[in-house]
Amino acid sequence: MKYVHDTLPQRVRLASGEAAAAVAEEVAALGATRVMVIASDREAALAATVTAGLPVVLTFDEVVMHVPVEVAERARAAAADAQVDVVVTVGGGSTTGLGKAVALTTGLPVIAVPTTYAGSEATDVWGLTEGSVKTTGVDRRVLPRAVVYDATLMTGLSVDLSVASGLNALAHCVDSLWAPRADPINAALATEGARALCAGLPAVVADPRSLEGREQTIHGAYLAAVAFASAGSGLHHKICHVLGGRYDLPHAQTHAAVLPHVLALNVPNAPRADARLAAAFGAPTALAGLERLRTKVGAPRALRDHGFREDQVADAVAAVLPVVPPSNPTPVTTENLTALLRAVWEGADPA
Amino acid sequence: MKYVHDTLPQRVRLASGEAAAAVAEEVAALGATRVMVIASDREAALAATVTAGLPVVLTFDEVVMHVPVEVAERARAAAADAQVDVVVTVGGGSTTGLGKAVALTTGLPVIAVPTTYAGSEATDVWGLTEGSVKTTGVDRRVLPRAVVYDATLMTGLSVDLSVASGLNALAHCVDSLWAPRADPINAALATEGARALCAGLPAVVADPRSLEGREQTIHGAYLAAVAFASAGSGLHHKICHVLGGRYDLPHAQTHAAVLPHVLALNVPNAPRADARLAAAFGAPTALAGLERLRTKVGAPRALRDHGFREDQVADAVAAVLPVVPPSNPTPVTTENLTALLRAVWEGADPA
Repeated sequence: MKYVHDTLPQRVRLASGEAAAAVAEEVAALGATRVMVIASDREAALAATVTAGLPVVLTFDEVVMHVPVEVAERARAAAADAQVDVVVTVGGGSTTGLGKAVALTTGLPVIAVPTTYAGSEATDVWGLTEGSVKTTGVDRRVLPRAVVYDATLMTGLSVDLSVASGLNALAHCVDSLWAPRADPINAALATEGARALCAGLPAVVADPRSLEGREQTIHGAYLAAVAFASAGSGLHHKICHVLGGRYDLPHAQTHAAVLPHVLALNVPNAPRADARLAAAFGAPTALAGLERLRTKVGAPRALRDHGFREDQVADAVAAVLPVVPPSNPTPVTTENLTALLRAVWEGADPA
Repeated sequence: MKYVHDTLPQRVRLASGEAAAAVAEEVAALGATRVMVIASDREAALAATVTAGLPVVLTFDEVVMHVPVEVAERARAAAADAQVDVVVTVGGGSTTGLGKAVALTTGLPVIAVPTTYAGSEATDVWGLTEGSVKTTGVDRRVLPRAVVYDATLMTGLSVDLSVASGLNALAHCVDSLWAPRADPINAALATEGARALCAGLPAVVADPRSLEGREQTIHGAYLAAVAFASAGSGLHHKICHVLGGRYDLPHAQTHAAVLPHVLALNVPNAPRADARLAAAFGAPTALAGLERLRTKVGAPRALRDHGFREDQVADAVAAVLPVVPPSNPTPVTTENLTALLRAVWEGADPA
């Protein structure tokens, strides 16, 4: 056993129906008196509810995917002009990301109120896009000081989006177990995240307005992000990054289709990860548990249904091989990677 | 599900045989150039090895249990005189505690190199004794910035002390599951801690020089302390505090004898805690797993063998009842607490 584990400071609150009171407490705890609210047009009503009663001096609603640098600059300038002393974000990953971009150069503290399962609020990773080039980095200043989860803000998220986003979070948990900086601390958090997602997602599918299902899912997604940020990218994320980038395949479907095949490849050489996930899923094996969950939530299976072509398999294998993490439990070869990607393409039984 | 969870920032490293290099890296990361080393006489040789090559300007070896305030004052004055910019502690709980006392008033960063399973290094709790009065408090400044675990520093710890200290750590894990601030995040860490202690302690008993057993044990003790600091004191610790304080019973034996009976009282109303611990112990139930572990490591059973008298049971019940945490899963009554303490006294089968 050997590790170097960095635990990042953050307060996380989960209390359904209590977001406004919780955010007010966090603003007061920071001694802040001039609040900037970042929320997109679509979430203006939600944001107004959550921030009612706060000393808001600025509302910024220009939220754009991937945080274009010119938008970040406008937000920073507006924050400076209004002399804000805290940023409250209400929204999904792009909204949180814009708050982080403001924090990156201003050092302003961020309180994040997420409305999806993206998980950006749990990490110190920022991203900015200039033209078509996305730059990411790691900086402690961008880690939100506090995260406020309120499941009543999430009951409007569609079942499809919830499942896609939840399975993406589950992939963070699973891939963390053999990622480059995997250790027994982030593994414990990843396992708890998988347990909660496995309980929460079927409940959301059965009843999208179920608070308990939403709570389990967001709790799981939070820990998934904490574990993933700590452990780094494993084989699953390397494969998905290549498939998404080279063939423009849809993000969520790609994750859903690839995950069981990476799990099947690795469990023979990762008995601890297998045991952890089996326990989290309440199943005899990790693979059996994941299959049961995928069936319950109607997860996508064959990537050929989503634009991946059989004649792209060889090209994908060549692109993935150089980026396989040395920490992967099963040595990756042209042969087993070709078999894996063919299985992903056709939606074969991972077992 | 509802929680407010504070995650405290800390870097923890575990690397057997590499403490000196790890401490040097942490000192460099802080940009520190004037090191104060705190280590007792008994650990002078260990400390010299661990801090060789550091820019040490002060060595302080007056380490006293419970950190008398006059010792803390001398250490603080010495630190100021020598203009130190980082404190490195090498030792057990009292040594770490003195480092924290220095940090409390000076704000100096602490790097802790623990040699026992006390766990103080993982918390922001400080303690000082003036005369016979112990004062404790919570302050972010006393949380060590980095913790360096090296199992080779622990192979000299006797089996008896290792078991006592390890079972004390296990009690932190178990009691965390129903403590006042218990939440699914500290529960995940407590569960991982229990898993590691259950694997490590028997290995230490079988071979005190086994690095793998020592590594699992210290990893478990670390997470036990993190979880306990986060969740707070549950029923088990309230009982042990009363028994230790009123009848001067030995700390470790008290914890070992009480724990299974608190577990037996609570599991009928704490199915999730039961399932978590059962999985951690690799046993059908939490109680069966704990009993198997206690048998393996030869844990103390009857507190009458350690000075507790039958005629003290009623007094103990009266003293414990007012401090029972409202979060305890099974309502505590005069009747069930009397039965529990009688069972602890005679070492009855907790099942």
